[in-house]
Amino acid sequence: MAIKIEKLLAIKFPIIQAPMAGGVTTTQLVAEVSNAGALGMIGAGYLTPSKAREQIREIKKQTQKPFGINLFIPEKFNVVEEKIEFAIDALSSLRHQLKLPPQKHIEFPSEQDLHETFEQHLQVVIEEQVPVCSFTFGIPSKEIIAELKKHKIFLIGTATTAEEAIENEKAGMDVVVVQGSEAGGHRGSFLDGNQEKLIGLMSLVPQVVDQVNIPVIAAGGIMDARGVKASMSLGAAGVQMGTAFLTCKESGANAIHKAAILSASAEDTIMTRSFSGKWARGIENQFTRQMKKYELLLPDFPLQNTLTQEIRKASASQRTSDYMSLWSGQSPELAKDQTARELIESIMGDVEKPGYDIYNDWG
Amino acid sequence: MAIKIEKLLAIKFPIIQAPMAGGVTTTQLVAEVSNAGALGMIGAGYLTPSKAREQIREIKKQTQKPFGINLFIPEKFNVVEEKIEFAIDALSSLRHQLKLPPQKHIEFPSEQDLHETFEQHLQVVIEEQVPVCSFTFGIPSKEIIAELKKHKIFLIGTATTAEEAIENEKAGMDVVVVQGSEAGGHRGSFLDGNQEKLIGLMSLVPQVVDQVNIPVIAAGGIMDARGVKASMSLGAAGVQMGTAFLTCKESGANAIHKAAILSASAEDTIMTRSFSGKWARGIENQFTRQMKKYELLLPDFPLQNTLTQEIRKASASQRTSDYMSLWSGQSPELAKDQTARELIESIMGDVEKPGYDIYNDWG
Repeated sequence: MAIKIEKLLAIKFPIIQAPMAGGVTTTQLVAEVSNAGALGMIGAGYLTPSKAREQIREIKKQTQKPFGINLFIPEKFNVVEEKIEFAIDALSSLRHQLKLPPQKHIEFPSEQDLHETFEQHLQVVIEEQVPVCSFTFGIPSKEIIAELKKHKIFLIGTATTAEEAIENEKAGMDVVVVQGSEAGGHRGSFLDGNQEKLIGLMSLVPQVVDQVNIPVIAAGGIMDARGVKASMSLGAAGVQMGTAFLTCKESGANAIHKAAILSASAEDTIMTRSFSGKWARGIENQFTRQMKKYELLLPDFPLQNTLTQEIRKASASQRTSDYMSLWSGQSPELAKDQTARELIESIMGDVEKPGYDIYNDWG
Repeated sequence: MAIKIEKLLAIKFPIIQAPMAGGVTTTQLVAEVSNAGALGMIGAGYLTPSKAREQIREIKKQTQKPFGINLFIPEKFNVVEEKIEFAIDALSSLRHQLKLPPQKHIEFPSEQDLHETFEQHLQVVIEEQVPVCSFTFGIPSKEIIAELKKHKIFLIGTATTAEEAIENEKAGMDVVVVQGSEAGGHRGSFLDGNQEKLIGLMSLVPQVVDQVNIPVIAAGGIMDARGVKASMSLGAAGVQMGTAFLTCKESGANAIHKAAILSASAEDTIMTRSFSGKWARGIENQFTRQMKKYELLLPDFPLQNTLTQEIRKASASQRTSDYMSLWSGQSPELAKDQTARELIESIMGDVEKPGYDIYNDWG
């Protein structure tokens, strides 16, 4: 019998709202998800530590329920001048199309900067006693894990393959989110070559479940009761949903982004690293079509992310989806314009219909 | 409530053994699958019409139960001399490694040949009254569909996207198999660009179910009761399983191929078109690693398939998996060395455990 994550996390429903970074996870979204019985999560990857602290305090005012925060693990990256120059050239015609001036000198974050931000984020998480902390793009050090555990913070790791899930378990994560190839946004991979593996949930969940003892949370393409039931059938203890919450009324995603998802087909998403330097799934647009031929030549994350920032912002302010990163999983046709509570209640209403027991021991 | 395919197909369990071409679907496998209550299928894509007829007659001697046959829809392909020369060059070092002589003049099948074989296959299917006929790589003409229906042959189409599923329904297919990105072997895509879409089953099944009225069969990465239950939860009326049957004792797959799957991890499969000219999933090996950089430069199916035939055969006869097409879905860790009956009964035993009703209306 799978361990109930609701019990572990003190939530009502086995649903985690994916910690989408970049302004999607507003205070209103996180608090409302938690108030509705699921787990709201702050995507703090691009927040300053002081902004993160501020949001945590705001959320606490709006909910008594548990919620969580997600941090990016700082990774090594290579600064190759030639690749940066190449990317600037490749992006120049896109800047021109948006009437942006040519790229001037640009300040990139250093590995040191990322480490310092991460350390400060961790201090905030501990000081503010955030109940749940999840990680993407890697696993924190033994010392950090011990420190967080000492403060009774529940730890969630992210994996895209069985070997990454096993690493998460070994490191002491309480549960692991397995991200199927269907998932929108960045691949959470951290082992060499795993970003490109793209294993579908139908294959990933049972193979991971067979190899780890911690509860497994399925993520990728799950939008409604059907996906939740299917994930539980595969042996998952719960689900993490991104795109389904992104189009909710409380989400901070740009209205253009929401509209693009609501009108997209399953065939419209592609994998690209041209926005950030890391592989991610989103809806194909002018930007990804023009950058496609350069995919493998662009600099590492977060360098490419910094280089495309002005372009993405200009696209949003000029009200065109052509140059925005339109992150979406492979199920946009199941996305709805609704409140987070409506989403959660419609799922659990269906799941709990008589005759179906999601906690049945599948054996 | 989903329509029961067991009723439509007069079988006991909603499981179809995938019609894997190339010698996998022996008479013994097909007959045993049907005798065990699922639907056995002949993969006739590479069989001559007389061999197909012979096998159909043999199967009828070994089972009274329904079984089926799969045909490849002949497609247009471009014969570009430069691409063929390029492929011969690219393959030459692999031939050398296998101690094969340099490639001599080679006879390629023409589009006309493929059409004639297809017409003859259809005659065999009608004359021998095969109960079920499925199609891959396209949809037959209106006239052919009408003729098959006149003979009360049950028709199964193949789709990799919702738009392909809709085309299958419009054409009059009785059910449609939707092939998720997890699936091993060739992509069954037939609309432009769909081969590369790679939609995971968690996303593909519900989105297709919402858009067609015919029953949907899920295929890709399904290996045990968990996958069957998950597929039904997503709205599928049944499953089609390939890799799970490929490693069964009755399957005609080369022992080296079976062993490669039984020792592989989920991370080990890749998409390649270097064996046949069509995208297909299999276990990475020496051949795919060496051909990776040429993937997009090779000639169309079936030209590339013809060019690699001797290499694949030599690899098998030299007892090395290095140059064989090791088709496998993304769940090789769930594959077992067992009989087809053991596989089917272990699945249905689990599915039918008390407390679980796969026919519950998921709503």
